[in-house]
Amino acid sequence: MKSFIEVHETSHFPIQNLPYGIFSTEENQNLRVGTAIGEYVLDLSILENKGFFKGVIATETTVFNKTSLNDLMKLGDKAWSGIRKKLQSLLSESEPELRDDEQLRKLVFIPSSKVQLHLPVEIGDYTDFYASKEHATNVGVMFRGKENALMPNWTHLPVGYHGRASSVVLSGEAVRRPLGQIKPPDSAPIFEQCRQLDFELEMGCFIGTGNDRGNPISVDEAEQHVFGMVLVNDWSARDIQAWEYQPLGPFLAKSFATSISPWVVTMEALEPFRTKGPDQKPKPLQYLEQNGKGSFDINLEVYLRSNKMSEAKKICSSNYRHLYWSIAQQVAHHTIAGCNLNSGDLLASGTISGADKQSRGSLLELAWRGTDPIQLNEEESREWLQDGDELTMIGWCQGENYRVGFGEVKAVIEPALDKDKVLKKNHLSYF
Amino acid sequence: MKSFIEVHETSHFPIQNLPYGIFSTEENQNLRVGTAIGEYVLDLSILENKGFFKGVIATETTVFNKTSLNDLMKLGDKAWSGIRKKLQSLLSESEPELRDDEQLRKLVFIPSSKVQLHLPVEIGDYTDFYASKEHATNVGVMFRGKENALMPNWTHLPVGYHGRASSVVLSGEAVRRPLGQIKPPDSAPIFEQCRQLDFELEMGCFIGTGNDRGNPISVDEAEQHVFGMVLVNDWSARDIQAWEYQPLGPFLAKSFATSISPWVVTMEALEPFRTKGPDQKPKPLQYLEQNGKGSFDINLEVYLRSNKMSEAKKICSSNYRHLYWSIAQQVAHHTIAGCNLNSGDLLASGTISGADKQSRGSLLELAWRGTDPIQLNEEESREWLQDGDELTMIGWCQGENYRVGFGEVKAVIEPALDKDKVLKKNHLSYF
Repeated sequence: MKSFIEVHETSHFPIQNLPYGIFSTEENQNLRVGTAIGEYVLDLSILENKGFFKGVIATETTVFNKTSLNDLMKLGDKAWSGIRKKLQSLLSESEPELRDDEQLRKLVFIPSSKVQLHLPVEIGDYTDFYASKEHATNVGVMFRGKENALMPNWTHLPVGYHGRASSVVLSGEAVRRPLGQIKPPDSAPIFEQCRQLDFELEMGCFIGTGNDRGNPISVDEAEQHVFGMVLVNDWSARDIQAWEYQPLGPFLAKSFATSISPWVVTMEALEPFRTKGPDQKPKPLQYLEQNGKGSFDINLEVYLRSNKMSEAKKICSSNYRHLYWSIAQQVAHHTIAGCNLNSGDLLASGTISGADKQSRGSLLELAWRGTDPIQLNEEESREWLQDGDELTMIGWCQGENYRVGFGEVKAVIEPALDKDKVLKKNHLSYF
Repeated sequence: MKSFIEVHETSHFPIQNLPYGIFSTEENQNLRVGTAIGEYVLDLSILENKGFFKGVIATETTVFNKTSLNDLMKLGDKAWSGIRKKLQSLLSESEPELRDDEQLRKLVFIPSSKVQLHLPVEIGDYTDFYASKEHATNVGVMFRGKENALMPNWTHLPVGYHGRASSVVLSGEAVRRPLGQIKPPDSAPIFEQCRQLDFELEMGCFIGTGNDRGNPISVDEAEQHVFGMVLVNDWSARDIQAWEYQPLGPFLAKSFATSISPWVVTMEALEPFRTKGPDQKPKPLQYLEQNGKGSFDINLEVYLRSNKMSEAKKICSSNYRHLYWSIAQQVAHHTIAGCNLNSGDLLASGTISGADKQSRGSLLELAWRGTDPIQLNEEESREWLQDGDELTMIGWCQGENYRVGFGEVKAVIEPALDKDKVLKKNHLSYF
């Protein structure tokens, strides 16, 4: 399959991908849906308006002249498949309809550099799983010792928790170092800026079609409900987390920001990269039993650049397939007690760590809780993230001479607010 | 203050209250905003349409002909106050404008019995705190023993966690007993229906105006951001919870349903019932330090009726003022690390238990984890909720010859789905 649009073989966005995103341009500030192809964004709202999706999408429905992907996501997997086929056909090098219509091409293809991307989805609820055995084990060893590293429930169910949807932000938005309550080992808790700021390499999937409350989605039907995936950086304040998290789980340590990549890669684009996840022992209970290949071979890398460095340093190479619990198992588990998932819900994987040191998906693990700093260059090392650090995650599937990629999720760490100023804002007294 | 509408002194909805809700009628199925007064619902969308709020709400804004309260809530506390004054004046026995306009009265006053109520707010994020010291201590004693009952962080910060917004439902909607993974003491985990179904007596507040990500709300400004309060029943599956909750907190044990009462009582209506909460020792850190009275004197009762009983039995009498952490402290803490609250977010209190046995706000505590069943009548007792049980919570503030009340939050327990049928739905195989 090849497009008339030239696409380099290392590009993340060949005709095999066609992810969806929300964009605007200087000339047209309306938010609308586009797909990425090579170095261009294709404006799908114009194609829809000109009737290119007649027969694929019900005529009264508009899904591309929208400020989020939610309406597209609600259409369901048959429609997603139809739209994808139509787009691949339109973009194919052998199809003259768009290829030879120079006027239309000028209208609908916009160079990526001239495009402003926006948060692609209105996220209702955000759930974060804990699906990497290596990550859960590493954290367990550090906090509870080798013997009690994995909690007894971990191999029986995909442990997860409710995250904060309001602070999910787009790649590129700066992340301010949080203030919070921290407990030094030898004193009462203090109000201070976070000193153990961390990233977490994750991926997330968006629910396309949900379920009614009280009606679980089976593991075999689960993937039909999933629209696509993005890269997720689940920023974490480890010192705030350590003090606050018992007994109800992480709260402020995570809710100051969670960054996602702008392009949602569809499950259909990922299909050729389907692979088997790790063997599951003990065998999961029947409602979690999944036949076939439930994982995907997605290369993941993390780069760190301090404000003194001109080039970023790769600090982690991992792969999505390391995850123990699959997306289908996460969806089935999430709904088994009756919880309703809605279109637009985000389910993140939890930190993706592999078996070797280089594949650990957080600074907590890479620098082993600050005891083994990672070296960035001859002058700089890191136990935790510093102000000015730029953290970038990329992800892609490697095909034969092409890549299906996720682009990147990137953000710079901004200094914390002045805590004395924050406290002065207090006691302005309004009673 | 008295209205020309007759209101009994035990009614929850005198002119001193004027809570907001969303309703429809058989004749007009459009969802719209109303207020409750005595035995009537006042249709505010008609009053707005007729220009009664000119000068109070900006002329281009419509907030009452809406399917949720969110637009009203976004207006901010000065507008809320202006609208309330206008309504109290319109309804006052001394004001002829509405009192003497029989035609208009027929149009705007609808008997409560003819009204269908709906979920009042589009909830973005739902947070559940754990603000009762007695509840946290009781749970701690049962699960960790007397010495380690309260976690060391508990007296230093309002412990809370992210809940599930999608499964917050209106009073009256049935609650299906969940299925899930349960760990018997002497075997591997099993897939079974919940055997330890519980309620939690809580109250929740709705955020009216939020904050930008990265910019905390100070404790002194916090209440200005809060629109009003409702009763909350945070249904809990204790056996599912016990197995799943470590280390990231409750997940499926809570997300199958959370019920709220339909009328949102404004903070201004609660103002006369402001009171001091419990003394806080140790003194909280400065960002949590609150001067003045931060709590409210709200009587709370829980009633249980099995399907064999004709009348419900009162099983709990508690009071909101028992809560250790105030709403202002919860809001200040929630935002201190940078988390952004949005209009429509729900912050629940956590189970409200007092010092004496009768005031414990969950069956877990009332029947002491099943070891001390409560007696409903000569034939029936309860360790946990049974199918067919109807659970009702009511709440009100007692004024001199009037009450400012919350009405009720009520639901019946439905039997679980047949687990074999749920498993058969599995393995229809779609690969």
